[in-house]
Formats: sequence, structure tokens, C-alpha cells
Amino acid sequence: MGPADDKPHEECGVFGAYDPAGNDVAPAIYYGLFALQHRGQESCGIAVGDTLGPRRILLHKDMGLVSEVFNEERLQKLGGNIGVGHVRYSTAGDSSPQNAQPLVLNYIKGTLCIAHNGNLVNAVELRRELELSGSIFQTSADTEVIAYHIARERLNAKSAEEAVASAMQKISGAYSLIVMSPRKLIGVRDPMGFRPLCIGKRDSTYFLASESCALDAVGAEFVRDVAPGEIVTITETGIFSEFPREKATTAHCIFEYIYFARPDSIIDGIGVYESRVRAGRELARQHPVEADLVVGVPESGNDAALGFSLESGIPYGKAFVKNNYVGRTFIKPTQLERESSVRIKLNALKKVVCGKRIVMIDDSIVRGTTCAQIVSLLREAGATEVHVRISSPPFKHPCYFGTDIPTGGQLIANRHNEQEICTLIGADSLGYLSVKSLSEIIQGRLSCCDACFSGKYPVARPKH
Amino acid sequence: MGPADDKPHEECGVFGAYDPAGNDVAPAIYYGLFALQHRGQESCGIAVGDTLGPRRILLHKDMGLVSEVFNEERLQKLGGNIGVGHVRYSTAGDSSPQNAQPLVLNYIKGTLCIAHNGNLVNAVELRRELELSGSIFQTSADTEVIAYHIARERLNAKSAEEAVASAMQKISGAYSLIVMSPRKLIGVRDPMGFRPLCIGKRDSTYFLASESCALDAVGAEFVRDVAPGEIVTITETGIFSEFPREKATTAHCIFEYIYFARPDSIIDGIGVYESRVRAGRELARQHPVEADLVVGVPESGNDAALGFSLESGIPYGKAFVKNNYVGRTFIKPTQLERESSVRIKLNALKKVVCGKRIVMIDDSIVRGTTCAQIVSLLREAGATEVHVRISSPPFKHPCYFGTDIPTGGQLIANRHNEQEICTLIGADSLGYLSVKSLSEIIQGRLSCCDACFSGKYPVARPKH
Amino acid sequence: MGPADDKPHEECGVFGAYDPAGNDVAPAIYYGLFALQHRGQESCGIAVGDTLGPRRILLHKDMGLVSEVFNEERLQKLGGNIGVGHVRYSTAGDSSPQNAQPLVLNYIKGTLCIAHNGNLVNAVELRRELELSGSIFQTSADTEVIAYHIARERLNAKSAEEAVASAMQKISGAYSLIVMSPRKLIGVRDPMGFRPLCIGKRDSTYFLASESCALDAVGAEFVRDVAPGEIVTITETGIFSEFPREKATTAHCIFEYIYFARPDSIIDGIGVYESRVRAGRELARQHPVEADLVVGVPESGNDAALGFSLESGIPYGKAFVKNNYVGRTFIKPTQLERESSVRIKLNALKKVVCGKRIVMIDDSIVRGTTCAQIVSLLREAGATEVHVRISSPPFKHPCYFGTDIPTGGQLIANRHNEQEICTLIGADSLGYLSVKSLSEIIQGRLSCCDACFSGKYPVARPKH
Amino acid sequence: MGPADDKPHEECGVFGAYDPAGNDVAPAIYYGLFALQHRGQESCGIAVGDTLGPRRILLHKDMGLVSEVFNEERLQKLGGNIGVGHVRYSTAGDSSPQNAQPLVLNYIKGTLCIAHNGNLVNAVELRRELELSGSIFQTSADTEVIAYHIARERLNAKSAEEAVASAMQKISGAYSLIVMSPRKLIGVRDPMGFRPLCIGKRDSTYFLASESCALDAVGAEFVRDVAPGEIVTITETGIFSEFPREKATTAHCIFEYIYFARPDSIIDGIGVYESRVRAGRELARQHPVEADLVVGVPESGNDAALGFSLESGIPYGKAFVKNNYVGRTFIKPTQLERESSVRIKLNALKKVVCGKRIVMIDDSIVRGTTCAQIVSLLREAGATEVHVRISSPPFKHPCYFGTDIPTGGQLIANRHNEQEICTLIGADSLGYLSVKSLSEIIQGRLSCCDACFSGKYPVARPKH
Repeated sequence: MGPADDKPHEECGVFGAYDPAGNDVAPAIYYGLFALQHRGQESCGIAVGDTLGPRRILLHKDMGLVSEVFNEERLQKLGGNIGVGHVRYSTAGDSSPQNAQPLVLNYIKGTLCIAHNGNLVNAVELRRELELSGSIFQTSADTEVIAYHIARERLNAKSAEEAVASAMQKISGAYSLIVMSPRKLIGVRDPMGFRPLCIGKRDSTYFLASESCALDAVGAEFVRDVAPGEIVTITETGIFSEFPREKATTAHCIFEYIYFARPDSIIDGIGVYESRVRAGRELARQHPVEADLVVGVPESGNDAALGFSLESGIPYGKAFVKNNYVGRTFIKPTQLERESSVRIKLNALKKVVCGKRIVMIDDSIVRGTTCAQIVSLLREAGATEVHVRISSPPFKHPCYFGTDIPTGGQLIANRHNEQEICTLIGADSLGYLSVKSLSEIIQGRLSCCDACFSGKYPVARPKH
Repeated sequence: MGPADDKPHEECGVFGAYDPAGNDVAPAIYYGLFALQHRGQESCGIAVGDTLGPRRILLHKDMGLVSEVFNEERLQKLGGNIGVGHVRYSTAGDSSPQNAQPLVLNYIKGTLCIAHNGNLVNAVELRRELELSGSIFQTSADTEVIAYHIARERLNAKSAEEAVASAMQKISGAYSLIVMSPRKLIGVRDPMGFRPLCIGKRDSTYFLASESCALDAVGAEFVRDVAPGEIVTITETGIFSEFPREKATTAHCIFEYIYFARPDSIIDGIGVYESRVRAGRELARQHPVEADLVVGVPESGNDAALGFSLESGIPYGKAFVKNNYVGRTFIKPTQLERESSVRIKLNALKKVVCGKRIVMIDDSIVRGTTCAQIVSLLREAGATEVHVRISSPPFKHPCYFGTDIPTGGQLIANRHNEQEICTLIGADSLGYLSVKSLSEIIQGRLSCCDACFSGKYPVARPKH
Repeated sequence: MGPADDKPHEECGVFGAYDPAGNDVAPAIYYGLFALQHRGQESCGIAVGDTLGPRRILLHKDMGLVSEVFNEERLQKLGGNIGVGHVRYSTAGDSSPQNAQPLVLNYIKGTLCIAHNGNLVNAVELRRELELSGSIFQTSADTEVIAYHIARERLNAKSAEEAVASAMQKISGAYSLIVMSPRKLIGVRDPMGFRPLCIGKRDSTYFLASESCALDAVGAEFVRDVAPGEIVTITETGIFSEFPREKATTAHCIFEYIYFARPDSIIDGIGVYESRVRAGRELARQHPVEADLVVGVPESGNDAALGFSLESGIPYGKAFVKNNYVGRTFIKPTQLERESSVRIKLNALKKVVCGKRIVMIDDSIVRGTTCAQIVSLLREAGATEVHVRISSPPFKHPCYFGTDIPTGGQLIANRHNEQEICTLIGADSLGYLSVKSLSEIIQGRLSCCDACFSGKYPVARPKH
Repeated sequence: MGPADDKPHEECGVFGAYDPAGNDVAPAIYYGLFALQHRGQESCGIAVGDTLGPRRILLHKDMGLVSEVFNEERLQKLGGNIGVGHVRYSTAGDSSPQNAQPLVLNYIKGTLCIAHNGNLVNAVELRRELELSGSIFQTSADTEVIAYHIARERLNAKSAEEAVASAMQKISGAYSLIVMSPRKLIGVRDPMGFRPLCIGKRDSTYFLASESCALDAVGAEFVRDVAPGEIVTITETGIFSEFPREKATTAHCIFEYIYFARPDSIIDGIGVYESRVRAGRELARQHPVEADLVVGVPESGNDAALGFSLESGIPYGKAFVKNNYVGRTFIKPTQLERESSVRIKLNALKKVVCGKRIVMIDDSIVRGTTCAQIVSLLREAGATEVHVRISSPPFKHPCYFGTDIPTGGQLIANRHNEQEICTLIGADSLGYLSVKSLSEIIQGRLSCCDACFSGKYPVARPKH
């Protein structure tokens, strides 16, 4: 639904491709980004090189969706067999064309291209240090800080990947990177593996992608995830792997499974769709209720609703129809009419809902206002009871690792307990998944970051 | 998914509003059209008058979606308390700005505005007759023929509605019309009631809409359907009704329930969503199969899939994830890549599908190519069996009543029997809903047109 | 300078082309319209047929300049060897896409295309008559009235040109028309020849154009002017001419020579540039003054200034530099700044002007405000005296023949005598060309309409 | 005429404004840039700060003309009382949004904005040096090199202007800079004064502008030129001046007077218009000819033509009409038609030219093709003789100081002597202004760079 909705947002998606056989990769990157569009709708870009030709990198990036920024003519101009793409979401503050990625830069060894998903926790300190030696910054993105470190390390490094490895000793936080030189594609994931990154292959072409759904979109096979702390270098000869830093406990973002990732992605071995169904099942176990129908808030609540139904035996149904044409240029009703924005986006199926006790499943509550409006839609449609179940714990703490979860004051769970929230949203009962049972989502198989729920941050929070 | 998909398309949606209290109606029409966008994505327009001011009609129409054609500035310029909106889909042949609606015309009695959903069967003859008396036509739409008849009848009629009534004696076929003079709003439905049209009210404002979901979108109450053959005239004093022609057997379009209408609409007393669930249930009774999972082809097959699951007891699940960002400006893979367009739009959930016997529900098969690709997606994802069930009978005959169902030659069911189709789409079994059981969809309560399935046309087909 | 300036405007330009040899004519029409852009900047359009193929007409028209509305892709889609183009200027009231031309219509004999430059004086009566027989109008342009008459006459006529001839018996006023059937190109000029129209040829291609400068632009030779009252029909076999109405005294628009036409055009045998130089010479004879420098107000005053200089012996110079980038999207200073709009568009050359007695030549004064600002620019630049000379008589009367000269109240010469105007614009002296000496402009060789100056209208003014 | 013409191009224009009284300066910058549009049509931008508010800089820049990139909404968002604007022309190679200016950067002391007109001769060496210390470059413009030097010097400098002064010790070549900190506006001109820069004032607001015509456009008074080698710092308290480097012989670009600058500008005390008239006079003295008419090639040849006429006594006239609607989106005839591009842009006035001996004046010949086509236009129009006179010497050498004069091979004068050129362009005689008499243009009052004619470069040419 775009930035106007009441959900946290992933801040980026990355996609890289390299075909040593020499075919153009821009079309595949276009479709890859297209499959990752849910990770960022503000700006996007594609940069391509030609490993068999001159050492130049062509770039096109702009504000807008992938389908708006690129057309056939633009793609055809991006000729080359190696390339990187990026989609970006951003909070209002730094929504500017200057921040669009990939970042293409010239440095001592030629040209380099970087696309980044994540957020550094020591960016302010690193930036300060760089400035003290006379560096200038043209964007407000952490990516530029990373770029500087790679460029500086490159002075003494034998290769781009060695420079990346050295840079990793300095930067701290969440980063899934694709770095492209005119001859190589390098994939990097921070030692804790906050953000996903995986490898795919189709015929002679290698791919790097934020999520496996993008590999499916281009007909590539999933090879494996890039491991936390790993640098993979893809050259004409194949894939090389190294782990420049000692092993750390991983801190995969649990929210990728709850909401961010596309349900058809498999991240670090765990299917996103199944995680959501499991979360719904666990929710049914923790917060059972007598009711006639389980419904999801489209579209993010549907999968957990199915799980809740399977576990509870209460029939699964559809209570809402979503208007598929709500886009960024849509005029919001607050600007023109007294009607709520929710009513334009969602309509309740009166005949389904009327006279029924409803279990309404959503993946999260952020500010609470949208949730209250949806509960109210059900009541107006004749629901006799509305029991809200949330397939994640209450949101209480900000995220410093590449999402835009709002600061404490705006989070309803930060200022109210569950009973109060239940009253505020007008529900008959409210149940959240407990922090303890989060591991149900990933079947206890991964070590995750749940700081937004628990307040326990896997690395020191930024000082500034 | 827009014109690129393999579905028949409704050709229009209409929405009218009149507030005797004097408030601007353009914002409500904007949201009304927005809720009817699924009925036409090619062009749209809004015309407004001011019953309390000068007898002028302001118009803005253009190619594009409602959210593209209108912005706040444009809406603000459309000041007035009475208005009509239109969304239009059209086949490639006459896709031109000249055909966008509403049509605003000057005639002997001043200004008139017409918005039309449907298709006349005697348009060619009427056009010929008019031309023989020196008339000129600037569009290829039937609407202009209707406009001429109203204008001519108006010469001897006491009122616009009387002229409309006289015109109804001449025109034949499918027409749900909204006619606006600078002082009145008139709703008309053809004697057989092919296309839907209903009345709503919110405070002092009256509405006319193709579907009730548009009334919900503007917070209006559903008052009633316009009856087949009825003319309703909305003036300052209220709603007046008349039936200028003798009663006929109705021929409501059954395909509105199967696919065209939005699931949250209630048309002629029958809920669209429930019809689809019932169709799924009947399908399960007619074509039972042993399987592990029932899945719908998003999004139109999901409701019938739920019905099939409820009736058969086979669990309902999700097998596909749809890319929500596919729009009109999207570059189709055939132009750039070897991958199928379907793969970009849909991805199968491998972990859900793998090793399972799948019942795949869709609402219809037109050309068959898309269906075959989706079956193949399931097989690649590891489905052991794929049983296709279609919640309508085989499509065999063209439609002359306002949809773009392709001509016989392109329809797979026209050239092949069910067994052959099953083989062509690569399914393990295939079952269509029988023509006989169509009445299950509308619970036997309405007399419908099922000519596209049965070949029995309720009125004589066009001669040209 | 666009509609923001203080000049009267021509309302249209037309251009037609037909190549019996079968080559596409859209590119030539593009360049032809481009050369006629000064005659209308609001909307434009091109319609093409194919005399060797099916009887269809393709059309593209939209709001905007020729270079904005058409691009290579659009032009390539307009394949065909016969075609008509139109550029349109319009007053604010009816500035709408509906009024863009050419008008393409279907009627009893198939398809017809009309492009019109001019204005009928009996349009209201004719429209009323047509409406009384049930006609509907979709535009506010006279062109639609003409179209109806041709369509009606065509019922009993043997050919399109015969129908045009019959229609000419009904319509009265100013009309230079290009009518295109899928097989023929017809040029028509009203019996008084208000608006220009001429014929050109290049290899096998025939052209019709509002002005000869458009023939030059496409490398065509000027063949001759279409005569007042003449119909020329261009077919595969050649050009046929007929004069369906008795001869009348001509009333060529004198203002084409003074301001409307491009200086490189030759209209009815008189060069536009030479006319302006002669007007300047006559002005020098009628209103001599002692001064140091003669300057023109760019660009329309420059030619007469040269004539004034040649006659008076006072040196010709440049006093103003014009900003060539002022376009329609330019933000006017009144909206943002206290500065006058004139200062942004024109700058005085201080070193040239300072200390000099200046004769400032312009072609006309409409409201007077712009003229006052320009005089003031000269004074600020240090001119010791500013003597304004206008190369036409005072504007006092509205035009009903296809221009947008404002109504009486807004014309400074309508409310003030020359002495008052001189004071109002802040000049040291003011001299207009006398109505009597207008014939100097066209060397006394044509009978012209000078109603805007003299109030003597060559046909009865419109009753409504 | 845009990049399609056959003229050298200035590469940039800069404009700054600061109003200590607190009024928004963006509107004035808009009009200032608008007046400088001739110096660069590819991209433009405006950056503003607020000396009375937080230390932030707002920026908007994009590809396109000033009137395309900015609208009222955009300008209103650029609130602030201090600001810098830039217009840029660029050669095809580095035509990219990344290179648009102003450049806004963050560095050790906060935020800085730089706009640059010119070209460094040691940019490659400086860039290499910077890269060796780990710097990264995101554009291909010299401006980024300058930015780095200012940022580095700022580490040890007491103020931004001191840092600028130190940076001037390193950079060599042509640079007129406007540097803006959130509190100050700094104007800098290189020690040789290649590119112009001047100071203006209107009420409480100070301005810096590439040319004085931009001061006129905003109603500001010309205060003085920034001197070669001078740094002027404008703060709340007033203007401070310093000369950090020893005096050098100036090398003002002579081509500003011949072609680049707008005729209404006064640069370093010399009026541009007068220079061109003087060049025409000198040309008449050096290359007299018997003829009937002196004409200029619009628009750049007109002023010298007037001078030639005044000196020779041969009457001045107009031989060409220029189409004012040729813009960047115009489809060039080579793409569509056999006609020459020149014919679309220029048309000869046959009645003026026919039978006459013409002296045709232009300011320069670059490749020679356009000149040949214009001579040919005159011959076709009936000129009996065409004598070409060029108000500058033959172009033979590339420029390294901020213009895009093509490299030697493409310059006709580089491969041919005057007699050959005369033959190639089809003229009866040809005369160039001699290098020696260039000083006539600036009345011998300035020391200028004439390297493009003489090959004598005032500083060492770039090594790379």
C-alpha cells in the first residue's frame, strides 16, 4: 500500500547478476528488482559493466517504482554482462534523488559500484573520522561511508575483495552488500547476518539477491545463502568464498519472516510462508477463542490466519476485499473527504461477517489507528464479536538495522499495555504472540534479532 | 492484471452523484470510480454540473487509471453538486482518447452528459439510419447512437426522462446508463437488466453506481438496484421511477458473479463473494477428487477454492504469491527475456506444493495458454498431481452485451473438448461447472444470460 | 511569447499533404505545422489516410506544441500518403482537449476529416437549426457546424467536393478549410478570402498550407494561392478548381500583414516582410521626429523599425535583448516577485540607449500596459526621449473572423484618444499609422478587411 | 538552438543571492538562472540555506531547462534567504544527472554548496593525488576536485573563505565559483579571470552572477565585477574582499564577447553588444566588398552585421526568418526527411534577397556545414553574390577553459585555409577578423585569452 500504510518498512533490496558468457544482464536485473519491489518503493537503479569491454560502468537511477523508472529504451542502453540493481524505501527526512542507489564512484583503482541493504551502528563515528581527514559526503546514506572504507583499504589491498574484507573490520551493524568492479561481482553479508542475501544460477549466469523470490522470477536456481560474515567473489572462474572475521552469534532479523520478506522466499533455510502459518498456529495455541470465522487483514495477515484456522479448527474465510489500484498517486481521502482512508482500501464482506464472531489476524500493530478502523469496519458489517490476534509480540523498541520502525513515542505498545490497546482498537479480546514463542516462527533453528520486541540489541546501539 | 492477462473484461463502470444541498460531488465520484476501476482501466472521466448555478457542464477525461488522470488540482476545478463518472476498458481496435467517456454534448435543449456500460445489438442499423439523415459520428462507441436518439426524442418530449423513455423504444441490447442534464440525474437499465446498476444515499446525496462496492467506498447506504427496464430520475424533490416498456424476462449477466464484479458487491440481491463460494462447493460436488490441498489461482480463483475446500473437506491453502506491482507500464518478458510472463506475475510456494496432490481452482479458461503455464508452475514446484477445476462452464460463444470475450476461434473450448483441454493444459484431471448448475451460483433466484456458455442469446444477435 | 503577451492572436493554422506515389506524409505535415506554430500554440493534431489502402483515418491530437505532442514513435504510427494537420490557439473560455483539431467524423459516406482556420458569423443560427433537427454537438468549434453541413449535403451530392460546394451556400464568415476524405484532399477558402490558404508541390506531393513559409519548410514550391471562394480538389489525377459562388469583393485580413503571418510568407501576392518595412516607411512619413536611434520592440516591431530608419535616415539599432527561453511553463513574476514580467522577457541595452532620443516602433498597442513598461525600460536605461510609433492604426473594434482581439472595453484605443494614450504609456510623442494609409502596407493591390481599425465590417456581424 | 547547432558552447552559468533581511531568495535565483539559460541548457539546480535558521541546505536539481525543472511548488519548497543556482551545458560524453550542479556536500565543518563555471587544467593530477589518499568521486566534474580541496584546507583554516584561499594555491585553470556555507556566500574568480563573475545589489539583497544581464533580470544594480584572483565573502555585515595570490596577467575569454555572453551584459567593463558592433565595423574595414545588403545570420550575427553596415554604408537588412519553436524535443529532419535541418530553422526572405549582392555576417565557423547550408539558402533565394564575413578569426585550437569547442580535427579552419573554406561553403568571398585586430572588440582595454584562435595558451595545457 506504500508509505501511507501503518506498517514498518524494509529499507532496501539488492540484486546482482554476472554472465561470463557475455549476455546482457540488465533485463534479468529489471525482473529481479521487480520481484524485490516490496522491499523499497521510493527509488531504484541499475548499474552495468562489461567484463569483456572497457572498464566503464553505466548507471540509471531515479525516484519511482521499477516499472516507472525503466522502460525498454532505458534497459537497452544499459548494455553489459555484469550489473547491480537496488530498490530503496526511505523515511520522509532523506527522501531525495541524491540518496538513490547503486552508488557508482571513481577511486584510485578505477570505478566501483555499491548497493547496500542495512544500516551501520557506527556510521556517525566513521563519518566523523573520515571528515577529519578531509572527506566529503554527497548523500546521507551509510553506503557512502562503506564506499570510503573500501576505497581507502584498496590502496594497500591486492584486490577489491581484500579491500572489502579490511573494510569489514571497521564497519559495524547490518549490511548486505553487492559490490561491483568492472570485472567482478562481490557479495557481502555482515557477521551477524541481519539482512538476507543469497546466490542463484541460471545457465552461465550468477545472481546475488536479497530474497530467493527474485531468483525464481528470473528462472534461476537457488544455490545457497551467503553466510553471515562471508564475502563471495564471483569472477569468470567461479565463486570464491572467504570469512575475514571470526565467527559471531548470528542475529537474523525475525521481522523478515513476520512481515518484510515475500512469502515465497526461503531465507536462511526457513520458508517465509510456512513461518507465518506456524506463527498463526502458535497464536491459536496461546490465545484460543470461541468464534465462527478466522479472517486475515489483507494481505499480510492471511497466512497467519490460515495457520490459526488449521490449529483451532475454526473455519477460515475472507472478510475483506482490497482495492488493488491504491498506488502512490492516489489522493488520500483525508485531503478531500470525511471518509477514512481504510474504507477506500478495504471493504468488509457484509454477508460473510454479519452475525458472526470473528477472529481477525494481523501481523503487527504499529500506531494502532489503522487496526481500530479495520475492527470498526467489521462491527459496521455486523460482526457480533471481534477478537484480534497478532502474529508477533508487541512492538516496543526502535530498529537500528535497516528498517523504519518508528521511534518509541509513536508505537502504541510503548505507551499502553495489552488491555489498554484492546480497548483502544475496540476489540473484544486481543492476543499477541509472546516473545518467548517467537522461535516457533523459525522452528528454533536460527539465532535471531528480536530487539524490536525484546529490547535486547545484538550489538551496541548507535551513540548518536 | 490489466489487458495483458488472459481473462475476459468488462467494458465499463459508471458512477453518478447528486447533492441537492449543494456540496461538490467530484471527490465522491473519484472514490466511486476508484472502487469500480476493475471494470475498466483504459480511460476514465468525470463531468460535473451545478444545479444551483449556470447550466454548464465541466468535463475532464483522459487515457489512464483514475489515480493517473485525476489529481487534487483537477478535482478542485470540477466544482458542482451533480456529476457523472466513467471507467472504460476497450479492445485494442478502438483504444483512442476520442472514445473516453462521459460524453458531453450540446443539443436543442442545452447540455447533456451520458455514461454508458453495455453494448447495443442494433447499433449498426441505428447508426446507418442516423447517417442517412445527415448525422455525423465522432466516436466508435454506441453511446453516441444513444445520445442522438435522446436528442431527437427531446424535440417532442416534455422532459429529458421522457426523451430517454422514447429512445428506449429504439435501442436494443445491453445498457446501464447514467444521463445527466444540468439539473437532473437519470439512471436507466435496459429491459433485460444485462448490466448492473444500483442506487445509494449518504445524507442528502444520491448515488448511482455499477456496483454496490462503490457505494461502500463513499460511505453510502445501498438503497436498491435499478430494476430492468426502469428509468429513475433524481431531482431536488427525490427519486422518480417509471417503466416505459412492457416487462421482459430478465437476462442478468451470469459472468458478473463468476468474474467481472468485485466480490464485495451485491448485485440484484445476490452477493458476489457468496456466489463464488457456492460455485466452488458445487464444483466439488460435480467433480470430486482425492487430493491434499485446494488452491486458487490468485486472485479470482481464491473464493471458489474456499468453497471447494469447505465442501470437499480437503484443506485450503495458498500455492501462489502474486507480484502486486505488475502494472500497465511493466515491460513484458516476451519483449526482453525468454521467461514466461506468468513467472514474473506468479510464483509457486515450493514448500507448500512439493509432494502434494493439488486441486487448482480458477474461474475460467479463455485461450488456455496461461492456465497451462500455471499448471506447469505447480509441477515444477513438486506437485505430484494437478487437478484443475473451473468454477464456470466452458467458454464457447462470443458476447455482444458489453464484454470483450474473444471470438470463437481464440477460445480453447470452441476448438477442443474437455479431455483435449485437460491434455493441452497438462492437468491430471479437469472439471468445469456444468451449464445446468450455473443456477447454483445465483441460487436459482434470477433469470440470467448464459449465452457465452450455452449459445442461447436472450435477444437476436447483431446482424453486422 | 505565448498567450501571456499583450498581442492579438491568430486562432489556427492548417496544413495538408497528399502524395499519390504512396509515400508517408506525416513527417512533412509535422514540419509544416512546425512552421505554422506561430498561428496557434494551444493544441495540435495530425490525421492521415491511405488512398491506396483501406478507407480509414488515423488521428493523433492533444494539447501542446507540435514538438510536445508528436515524437518519432507517434509519427511512425501515422502511416499514410494523405493527411491533414492543424495548430490551434484559443481563448481561455474554450481551452479544452475536445476542441483540438482536425475533426474526424463518420457519416453516411464513410469517414471525413476537417481542419479549419476562421470563424463563422452565422454559426449560432446554423447550430440552432441543426439542433432543431436533432443534431448533437461535442465541441464548441464552428468546425462541427461546417462538418454537419457537408455531411447533410453529401446525402444528395455526387462527391465530397460537391457537398462542400453546397455547404458553402449556407455558411458565412471566415473559413479556410482543408477537408480530407480517404481518397481526396480538398482546399476551400471563403468568398471574401479572410484567411490565407495556398498550394505547393514537391515532386509528386501536393500541399495545402495556411502560409507559404510552411511550403518552404518542407522544400515545396509555391504553386499559387487558393482564390477567395474557390474549392480545389486534389486527387490522383491532379488539381481541380471550381467557384461555386458568385464573386464577392474580397476582404483579406490586413492584420496578417501587420502581425499574424510569419515575415517570410507571401500571402495573396504580397510579401509580409516587405509590407512591414513599407508600413515603417509610411509611418516615418506621417509622423516624422528628430531622434538619434530607431529601435523595434522585438520581434514584431523590428521590420517596421527598419523601414522607419530607411525612410527617415535615423540610424537603426538594437535597444532590447529578448530572453529566448520564455515558454508556456515559465513562472510569471507576478506570481513570485515584485518585478515586472517585461523585465524578465526584455532587457534594454543601456550603453546603446543612454543619452539618446529613441524612436520605438511596435506593430500595435492592445491594452497598453506592456507598451508602458517597455517605454519605462528605455527611460531607466537613460533614454532622453522616447517617441513611440505604431505601424498600424488604433485598435478599436472586435474581430469576428478568427482572431482573439479582445472586446472593446479592454482596448486602450477604445477608451482613450491618442493624446491620452501617449500620456498613459509615458511617451514623449505617439504616432499611429492612419487607417487611410493602410493600403500602403499592401501597396493598394488588395481589397482588405480593416474592421478592427475602421469598424467597417465586410459582412454582417454575428447577431449573438 | 540547443546542442544541435554548430556553435561552441559555454559550459555553465552561476547565480547566488543572499538577503540578510531574511526574505526567500529562490524566486530571484530562478529568474537569474533564467537570464543565464544561454550559458547551459542541459541541467540546472538551486540550493538554498537559511542563515537565520538551522544549518541545512535544501537542493533541487535535474536535467532540463530552468522552466522545466522548476515550478511554483518546487520553488516554494526551497525556502531560505541564501542560495546558489547553476545552469549547465555538457558534451554528450558526460551528460548525466550525476553531474548536475550545485554540488552540496557534508564535510568536517558541516555543509557546503559549490557552483562552478570553468575548467581546471590540473584536474587529472589533483584527482589522482586525492585518490591516492583514499578519496572517492561520484561525478566527472572538476567541481568535486575543488570541493575536496576546500574540505581538506578547512581542517586547518579559520573560515570557509580561508579554506577557499588555500585551495586556490592548488587548483589551476578557469574557475568562477560560488561557494555557500549555511551562513555565507563566497564568490571566487581564478587569477586570470577566464570566466566572468559580477556582484549586484537590490535593497538588502546581494547577488553574484556570471553575467550582468542576470542582475538586470532581478532588478538589481550592478555593483562591480569580481576581480581576477579575488575572493569576495558576503556576510550579514557586508562584502569582504581578499586577494590570496599574487597578481597575474589576466586572460579574459575573448569568446564571451564574440558569442557566449548575452549582448546586454557588460563584462569587465566592456559592453558585449558594443563589442560585437565594433567587430563588425572592423570587419568592414579589413574586408570591404561592394554589395547591396548586409545581413546577419540570426541571431548571433545580427549585431556585427549592424556594425558592418554602419562602417561600410551598405544598407542593413533582414534575410532570414528563424523558427522560434525549435527546441530540444524537436525531431530533426535527418531522422525523418531528406530536408536539411537548417531549412526548418531558417528561411530566407526571397523578396529581400533576390537579385542582390549579399554580405552575410556570422560570428564564427566551426565545422562549416551549417554555414554552407545557409549560403545555399541565400543562393536559392536568388542572391547574385554571397560574401561571407566572420566577426572573429579562424577557429583552430581547442579550449581547455570551460567551453566545448571541438577538437582540432573537426574544425574546418584546422584542415583548410581561408581560400579552401570559401570554396567549401560556396561563398563568393570570405573574410575573417584577424587575430591582431581582436583587440578592437574589447577596445584594447583588457588582456584576453585568444588561444582558440592563436594557439597561445595563457597557462600550461593539461597533460592528460
